[in-house]
Amino acid sequence: MPLTKAEIVRLRSLQDKKHRAALGLFVVEGEKVVGELLAAKFPFAELYATEAWSGRAGGPGAPRPTGITPAEMERISHYPTPSAVFAVGKIVRAPLAPGGLDRGLTLALDGIQDPGNVGTLLRIADWFDFDRVVLSPDCADLFSQKVINASMGSFARVAAHTAPLADALAGCAAPVLGCDLAGDDVHALPPLRDAVVVIGSEGRGLSPAVAARVTRRVTIPKFGGAESLNAAVAAAIVCDNLRRTR
Amino acid sequence: MPLTKAEIVRLRSLQDKKHRAALGLFVVEGEKVVGELLAAKFPFAELYATEAWSGRAGGPGAPRPTGITPAEMERISHYPTPSAVFAVGKIVRAPLAPGGLDRGLTLALDGIQDPGNVGTLLRIADWFDFDRVVLSPDCADLFSQKVINASMGSFARVAAHTAPLADALAGCAAPVLGCDLAGDDVHALPPLRDAVVVIGSEGRGLSPAVAARVTRRVTIPKFGGAESLNAAVAAAIVCDNLRRTR
Repeated sequence: MPLTKAEIVRLRSLQDKKHRAALGLFVVEGEKVVGELLAAKFPFAELYATEAWSGRAGGPGAPRPTGITPAEMERISHYPTPSAVFAVGKIVRAPLAPGGLDRGLTLALDGIQDPGNVGTLLRIADWFDFDRVVLSPDCADLFSQKVINASMGSFARVAAHTAPLADALAGCAAPVLGCDLAGDDVHALPPLRDAVVVIGSEGRGLSPAVAARVTRRVTIPKFGGAESLNAAVAAAIVCDNLRRTR
Repeated sequence: MPLTKAEIVRLRSLQDKKHRAALGLFVVEGEKVVGELLAAKFPFAELYATEAWSGRAGGPGAPRPTGITPAEMERISHYPTPSAVFAVGKIVRAPLAPGGLDRGLTLALDGIQDPGNVGTLLRIADWFDFDRVVLSPDCADLFSQKVINASMGSFARVAAHTAPLADALAGCAAPVLGCDLAGDDVHALPPLRDAVVVIGSEGRGLSPAVAARVTRRVTIPKFGGAESLNAAVAAAIVCDNLRRTR
């Protein structure tokens, strides 16, 4: 049965953040990323696929895909070159409980606007098995396709929250680590079972309100001429050193 | 004096790799990146700037900019939204001497096609003061604007060579480190004064001929569910561990 005009308009409209927020839905397209998320058992609400979709048979627990034509896919897709599959998920924004950063390892992103960087940071948090990622409200939208694509499936495995960071860090019982050019050598980090690692944007660094919550400044030793490292690269080095000492 | 038609055609043509190679020239545009390269004393051959360029006064050693109008800048620029400055440099491809990887620290890139990743890797090599970077011929072109922009000035500070990697690594006296899921723990790396770190593309990993030259497989300990790390992130963690042990 062909998609109705209204269905096409609704699915297509989800390319705007505003409409995603209003409908509480987000979209992921592409065989690779949809396959990764299905493999991670992400509970999609709707799946649309053309006959070309290799994952069409689905896996245990995957919703039955609605078969559509390539012409329909072109109309609903958010890309100029549509893929064979279009998945819709419910936006679930898990609230951060008071004291929610006190235990375990948290990666906190302060104003990271590049969606590729946010996705790479989710993947780093996943690799190092951090308990959660917290995004300040001015980070790239967690539910944008670019973030989800760059996370390479980690989007489905990492607990992510969006919250005003300075407030969330107020009274945090765990040490709050921030990268700084004049902090303690990251190689000398003691074992930390509970910690928050805050990462600022490359251009502007940490916002003043978040910087004021940092309780331990750490420095990645520099040997050459580069002025700074990419935010994700710096985060990964801090995470590797944190994990090394446990 | 206005630019001639021929000058405009020549400058504009440099957006194609083919023309850059034929003329032995490359282009960098943008106040930020040109400023970074001038600060690093990169010897540009030509500089074109509109009156809006804040760096117009130039620094010691910088070539005197040719003043052009915004309309001329629009015609020579490689971007839809031109900046105030357009710099031309000579492509100098320093040959890699036989035995050139035996001493010091080398970052070797095998088929890294994303120019942003290549630029980020140059920046990592710069931060950790590696002696050189070697790019396999199928990496993104070192002299493309995207690579130079992503390197944040490190392009001017890092010695970079393009060479067939497997040949360059043949008979290398230094240990050749490659990331692998089943290698030695990178945290247990002994101090190495001389080493080559080879990094493959994220999608395909190391090419078989380069993988055959790896003499020491290292693994970044993984704690969570992500299948892999971004190539630049993995490189940075290996570099940090190499430097830690010196």
